[in-house]
Amino acid sequence: MLKSRSLIKHEYDRKHPTALNHQPNRLCFADGCRRVDYVLVYHCKRRQSQHRHSVVSNGNVPTPSRRSTKGDISEAVLEAGLGMEPPNEPQDKIREEFERRLQEEGLEIEHDKEMRTVRFTRLHVPWSVLSREAELLKIRVPTKKKTGLMGIISTFWTKINQPFQPGVPEPQDPRTRVLSQPFSRDKLHLRTACTQTCQTMGISSLLAKGVYDSAFPLHDVSIVMNDICVLQMLHEEWANYGACYKYQPMDLIRKYFGEKIGLYFAWLGVYTQLLIPASALGVAVFLYGCLTVDTNVPSQEMCDEHLNFTMCPLCDRVCDYWQLSSICSTARASYLFDNHATVGFAIFMSLWAAVFLEHWKRRQRCLQHSWDLTGMEDDEVRKNELRPAYEDFLLKKQEKKAKNNKKEEVNCTIMYYTKLASESLSWTDRLPGYCINISSILLMVGVTFSAVSGVILYRIIVFAVMSMNPDHEAKANVRVTVTTTAVIINLLVVLVLDEIYGAIAAWITELEIPKTESTFEEHVILKAFLLKSMNSFAPVFYVAFFKGRFAGRPGDYVYVFKDFRMEECSPGGCLIEVCIQLGIIMLGKQLIQNNVFEIAIPKLKKMYRTYKEEKDGSADEEDKDSKREPQRWDLDYDLEPYEGLSPEYMEMVIQYGFVTLFVASFPLAPVFALLNNVIEIRLDAAKFVTEIRRPDAVSAKEIGIWYNILSGISKFAVITNAFVISFTSEFIPRMVYQYLYSETGTMHGYTNHTLAYFNTRNFKPGTAPHDTDFDRQLRICRYKDYRDPPWSPESYQLSKQYWSVLAARLAFVIFFQNLAMFLSMLVAWLIPDMPRSLKEQLKREKALLMDLMLTEEADKQCTQSHPMTTTNNDVVIKGLEEGSPEELPVCSGVMLSHVHTAEFLT
Amino acid sequence: MLKSRSLIKHEYDRKHPTALNHQPNRLCFADGCRRVDYVLVYHCKRRQSQHRHSVVSNGNVPTPSRRSTKGDISEAVLEAGLGMEPPNEPQDKIREEFERRLQEEGLEIEHDKEMRTVRFTRLHVPWSVLSREAELLKIRVPTKKKTGLMGIISTFWTKINQPFQPGVPEPQDPRTRVLSQPFSRDKLHLRTACTQTCQTMGISSLLAKGVYDSAFPLHDVSIVMNDICVLQMLHEEWANYGACYKYQPMDLIRKYFGEKIGLYFAWLGVYTQLLIPASALGVAVFLYGCLTVDTNVPSQEMCDEHLNFTMCPLCDRVCDYWQLSSICSTARASYLFDNHATVGFAIFMSLWAAVFLEHWKRRQRCLQHSWDLTGMEDDEVRKNELRPAYEDFLLKKQEKKAKNNKKEEVNCTIMYYTKLASESLSWTDRLPGYCINISSILLMVGVTFSAVSGVILYRIIVFAVMSMNPDHEAKANVRVTVTTTAVIINLLVVLVLDEIYGAIAAWITELEIPKTESTFEEHVILKAFLLKSMNSFAPVFYVAFFKGRFAGRPGDYVYVFKDFRMEECSPGGCLIEVCIQLGIIMLGKQLIQNNVFEIAIPKLKKMYRTYKEEKDGSADEEDKDSKREPQRWDLDYDLEPYEGLSPEYMEMVIQYGFVTLFVASFPLAPVFALLNNVIEIRLDAAKFVTEIRRPDAVSAKEIGIWYNILSGISKFAVITNAFVISFTSEFIPRMVYQYLYSETGTMHGYTNHTLAYFNTRNFKPGTAPHDTDFDRQLRICRYKDYRDPPWSPESYQLSKQYWSVLAARLAFVIFFQNLAMFLSMLVAWLIPDMPRSLKEQLKREKALLMDLMLTEEADKQCTQSHPMTTTNNDVVIKGLEEGSPEELPVCSGVMLSHVHTAEFLT
Repeated sequence: MLKSRSLIKHEYDRKHPTALNHQPNRLCFADGCRRVDYVLVYHCKRRQSQHRHSVVSNGNVPTPSRRSTKGDISEAVLEAGLGMEPPNEPQDKIREEFERRLQEEGLEIEHDKEMRTVRFTRLHVPWSVLSREAELLKIRVPTKKKTGLMGIISTFWTKINQPFQPGVPEPQDPRTRVLSQPFSRDKLHLRTACTQTCQTMGISSLLAKGVYDSAFPLHDVSIVMNDICVLQMLHEEWANYGACYKYQPMDLIRKYFGEKIGLYFAWLGVYTQLLIPASALGVAVFLYGCLTVDTNVPSQEMCDEHLNFTMCPLCDRVCDYWQLSSICSTARASYLFDNHATVGFAIFMSLWAAVFLEHWKRRQRCLQHSWDLTGMEDDEVRKNELRPAYEDFLLKKQEKKAKNNKKEEVNCTIMYYTKLASESLSWTDRLPGYCINISSILLMVGVTFSAVSGVILYRIIVFAVMSMNPDHEAKANVRVTVTTTAVIINLLVVLVLDEIYGAIAAWITELEIPKTESTFEEHVILKAFLLKSMNSFAPVFYVAFFKGRFAGRPGDYVYVFKDFRMEECSPGGCLIEVCIQLGIIMLGKQLIQNNVFEIAIPKLKKMYRTYKEEKDGSADEEDKDSKREPQRWDLDYDLEPYEGLSPEYMEMVIQYGFVTLFVASFPLAPVFALLNNVIEIRLDAAKFVTEIRRPDAVSAKEIGIWYNILSGISKFAVITNAFVISFTSEFIPRMVYQYLYSETGTMHGYTNHTLAYFNTRNFKPGTAPHDTDFDRQLRICRYKDYRDPPWSPESYQLSKQYWSVLAARLAFVIFFQNLAMFLSMLVAWLIPDMPRSLKEQLKREKALLMDLMLTEEADKQCTQSHPMTTTNNDVVIKGLEEGSPEELPVCSGVMLSHVHTAEFLT
Repeated sequence: MLKSRSLIKHEYDRKHPTALNHQPNRLCFADGCRRVDYVLVYHCKRRQSQHRHSVVSNGNVPTPSRRSTKGDISEAVLEAGLGMEPPNEPQDKIREEFERRLQEEGLEIEHDKEMRTVRFTRLHVPWSVLSREAELLKIRVPTKKKTGLMGIISTFWTKINQPFQPGVPEPQDPRTRVLSQPFSRDKLHLRTACTQTCQTMGISSLLAKGVYDSAFPLHDVSIVMNDICVLQMLHEEWANYGACYKYQPMDLIRKYFGEKIGLYFAWLGVYTQLLIPASALGVAVFLYGCLTVDTNVPSQEMCDEHLNFTMCPLCDRVCDYWQLSSICSTARASYLFDNHATVGFAIFMSLWAAVFLEHWKRRQRCLQHSWDLTGMEDDEVRKNELRPAYEDFLLKKQEKKAKNNKKEEVNCTIMYYTKLASESLSWTDRLPGYCINISSILLMVGVTFSAVSGVILYRIIVFAVMSMNPDHEAKANVRVTVTTTAVIINLLVVLVLDEIYGAIAAWITELEIPKTESTFEEHVILKAFLLKSMNSFAPVFYVAFFKGRFAGRPGDYVYVFKDFRMEECSPGGCLIEVCIQLGIIMLGKQLIQNNVFEIAIPKLKKMYRTYKEEKDGSADEEDKDSKREPQRWDLDYDLEPYEGLSPEYMEMVIQYGFVTLFVASFPLAPVFALLNNVIEIRLDAAKFVTEIRRPDAVSAKEIGIWYNILSGISKFAVITNAFVISFTSEFIPRMVYQYLYSETGTMHGYTNHTLAYFNTRNFKPGTAPHDTDFDRQLRICRYKDYRDPPWSPESYQLSKQYWSVLAARLAFVIFFQNLAMFLSMLVAWLIPDMPRSLKEQLKREKALLMDLMLTEEADKQCTQSHPMTTTNNDVVIKGLEEGSPEELPVCSGVMLSHVHTAEFLT
């Protein structure tokens, strides 16, 4: 085993001489034998570097068996020759106690020999400790799977699928298991409270206090699965654009990065995979539009110059009358996205969303089973761990209380435990936090709306100014220029606010003093999602549902700031503008976020860090003396720290919003999302494998709150799509015309029907066009609205048609919403949460277990008269000696996880 | 213990000398020592009574240790002196084998000494078998609860709540546990296959084949909890109308009847309890209507004779013009249910439904915890057990296949196992079943609609006929008479069809050949619910949404069968008719179902059975010789068999439908439901305690499909209420008038606005009233509709008002639906699924466990070098010897359920 591993390493190093220069011996303590499982990093204060020279000479390897008794800390440190100055800083004291306690727990520790500003504490976890922890945390041994007889179809499917499978050898024996299961932080907080230095449990608290700067496991080329180097495999088959048409090697990802990150990539994979059918249909819908545009009566009518509709001017005085046929191209473009097929596609996408969520649930179940997470109780330890800030607050509160009670002698140990006992903050403690939260969120909402309004104003003003330009050439391009520049400004605003909102969400949640890390994460995510999604979608919402609805009518236009007319959609409809808006924001966001935020900015950051360290280093002359080959931990420390999965999820969830919320107006959204994600997966993969420090392996059963957010978006999407179809697109007016008003039952005459009449005598004085190319005696011009004609008793009032179309639109919303919701529920009900194959496998495992228990029971009854004093374990345990996994009975995994001690009625 | 138990029994017998004449010695085998845990009953065929006399003489108690070897069955039987004729019937053979296998499993069996037509096989399960089964089924030992410090409020609450608590002594030691846990059927199917007689597993199969007639445990006065006789307690504190204001003694119910029945009553309790606030608010809304009816402008206007609206005749020729003020009382009555408060109440009820579902989830979680169901895996054995009909079908199919393959020698044992291996029915096997299913359901839907249409026709025809009556007195009462009789006919139809549909649902599901009992149950429930709810709600739906919408207008009425006018709602609005319809059907259904179906019919059935048995008995002369005191099993056999919880649930779920679906039109529905349920609980309780055989104790974790049905009804209710408010009630037209058309901003003039004008010249020839009390020269009459007046260019067309009101109605539906759905989701999200107290308790238990494990771990490390070969059980098991429950450590329950064998990384 060891031999093959070093061979792999050698090969790998040969191929990637610089990428990640893995040298297994660098992953060990100085004795070259004990592995470095985890690294803690801290900075030494500048002023201490004065008396460091005196200690550095006798630096040697620490003895892991050292057990210092309380009281003589500094002595012990010197004695052990840790190469450290006497702890005169409180942080040093804390660090000292923490590390001593870790050693008491059985961990082994090594410090640097040289004295640099950045110092490393390396931890090794001996086998005995690891297995004890494994037992306590109930890490489960998996069962061997028997996949049973596969039918011809499934064989065929496997063959077809072959090219998409990553080039990872099939696991030969899924029972062999992770000796090198990454040392998890869990074990660090579990039971290492620094009570002496009045501190609390856990590494995260120490990180928060700045006792350590950083804590991470090392990138490790020695992790193998089926005799293959996992890291190398990940490099070749995952973090590689060449592999972007393949499935991801999920088991390897999970093995190397843990379940939480594994689930993220699995989810991203499922999402991307399901985007394929959606994209295909989206393209088909678009093509259908392209093919039928020439047979579409309304756009033909709009382009027909013989019909000669003279339209009313779009603004007062400076604007002229215009011919409807001049916007022919917009009308045709609009039809590409606004045809019958779009409605079907919108319903399809509602179902697609339901299928996606259900499919993910199934996939998650399968992963849970194959990763043995089924029985796991959602990591209660981690979940209930208090946040450092919360603990601090409680401590301060109690100190204050104690002071008020005039009890001068505050014993900190007792305090710590009383605190734990009555662990809660009152409502009044949280009130200021909540107030700031609510007001900040309202403020941010205000900022978002102002940003949107600002862009609207920009458009209105620039449009008005440019309209006054006497040059006819320039006038023709006004709309395009204004729209495009406005959208780009919009995009920039969205991008900038996105970053700001992310920071603000974290900051205001911090003020809320949430109790546990998981609450904190959940609250940050919810707030960030609320703000960011509002930020991204508000401009689109405006264009889809509000633009042009308050513009007034010729002769009675609505003005803002007296001079500028409220903007209106192009006469081709608002839908095409939604398309442009959506397309540019979505694509721009993806491109810029992928390129700038995920590639350029980290590079810049790194450059800055290097620069800064070099500057620091130049002052740190003594470090240069000991300039030695950089160790693995030095290299890893130079990488970017891992910053959680939230930004990755957030990006994808917002994208999911773009894909589903307005799909009725932009059927190409899934295609763009698909293209982006294929790249995104590999980009993220490369980031995880090469650009950031190795994250802690965190176990997780599901993707948590993100699932709820996705399901919320899907539900909301049904409503938005219903409104887009009925209010933004021309679908309903066309239907109403065809079935209610058309005399021939066809669409002929539709354009005429949608245009209201205006008598030019009704222009208010001074608002008629003062310079026109058209007949000055023109009496009637047309405008797009449902209003009674000038000759009717209720002239210019909303007409009966308006109300009937409105009723039809609303009826359609009700119909669409209920249909889509019903179908989604039906889909969710029809697709079982657990795949049949998994169900059958579980049944089989259970049957095996039952059989085994019965046999055993029978044996027991034969050999013993009183069955209650024996335990089941004798039978099971025998295959479990270290190093003999081959002797395990087939169902031993099941046995281990199910066999309880005899449980009786007493 | 035994002493106190017999004391209780004595007391109980004294109080209930006849009710359930419990005599513990009758609950035992003839040796007076072994308890009868379960009873199997079968009938002997008449013709065998001939040669029975010869065997009966040497009847004695069977020896339970008898183990007959295969082959010489009949000999063994005679040898054991079972008092049975040699098994020459196939059923006897099967029975013989089954009972032998039960004995092999360790069960002890007693037969009757006398030879009667009804024979009993009594089973006793020895302690050793029981504990073995408990171990296999993982029945868990509960933990001791520490409720922690209760605040002043909760103490206060406890005090307030005291009178409502059932008079059951507080459990002193919740760890003492059920020695007499009712012997469950599970254990009978588990492993008693009759392979010899070519039969399959399980008692349910034998029951289906008629090998046994009945199988039930006995009502048992000897079950005690905290030294109290459970049955007696149930009698006094539960199945007693005097206790109907109290909570139910849930733990006792669960102890005596098992979890499934316990959950039903718990659910019913939660539902009834939550009906209290809904009822209170419903009554308040009704009272608000009563108090404000005099200030309501529209109904005042309708009653105002000075306004003098002359209405058009309601039918051609025979009907006269009429004054609007003549329907003043209807208008006022209508207002009681159709006011602003109703809208708020409808939204409240949507939230109420959400709260109810969430609250039930919490309660269920609490029950799961206190009944130790948390870890239970949904009774997989029971779930996967094949149905006898399914097995039969498979068997026949394979026999046929075998015949076709010309393999003559069909070994049945092999067949049985091959069948099990390839256990599935192809789609073609099920096709006829599915076809019959679909067509039957469609047929039933048709029947329901015909029934509704029939009643409508009845109304139309009777109304027309009675209208022709020249007597003015009679005419005035026409509407009331017709409506009332029609509703009563409707009610009868609903009741009759309800019973029929229940039977049909079971029958067509049988044809579908579902695989397992749980699938069968689920399918029956779904179909029965579909049919029954349609049956109950269709008439109400008709009145609410369709009645009067297709009636035409004066001069152009719509006719059915040429002569009869389509019916119309009263001019006061349809809402009052919905009220009447709903009130009568709901109340009538409850009263009749409670009294007739749940009390009278069982009594009649029993009388019939007694009568029939007496008739049978008179022929059975020899039984009369051995006329002895009836044993407990004789008495229990005379009770009605238990027929499952489905009818009980169904009744309540339909009621829930009445309460939620149309609550906007009938705010008093919750009150009636509440009154009914308070009685219903005690009625059901009495039934379970005294009138039916004791049901098998079935464990269940949740109420299953019923929860989904309830949640479906709640979702649907949002939609129906939205439509009722906007389309059935006058709420929207009133709002639209007030804010869009009213010149004063008040409701004055509303009545005039809602009435359209009709020119009497436009009557078609011969349709004008031929005899009128009004002025013959009357030119204009009014009718309730939004249509253009005769003098407009589009006379009698739907007016602009119509369309704007329609748009407002639809907009309201969208608004209401989304608001209610959003609020419901918010409520569901805000109410955590698990109560905080339970969560904290679980956390505490977990902490205890962790502590214990750590201590143990530390001990282990001290005493042993290699921690992997020891198991945790030594430490835990010591408190568990039989009879020493007091020595259990506090957390032993947790320990037992959590401590696994060491699980390692290998």
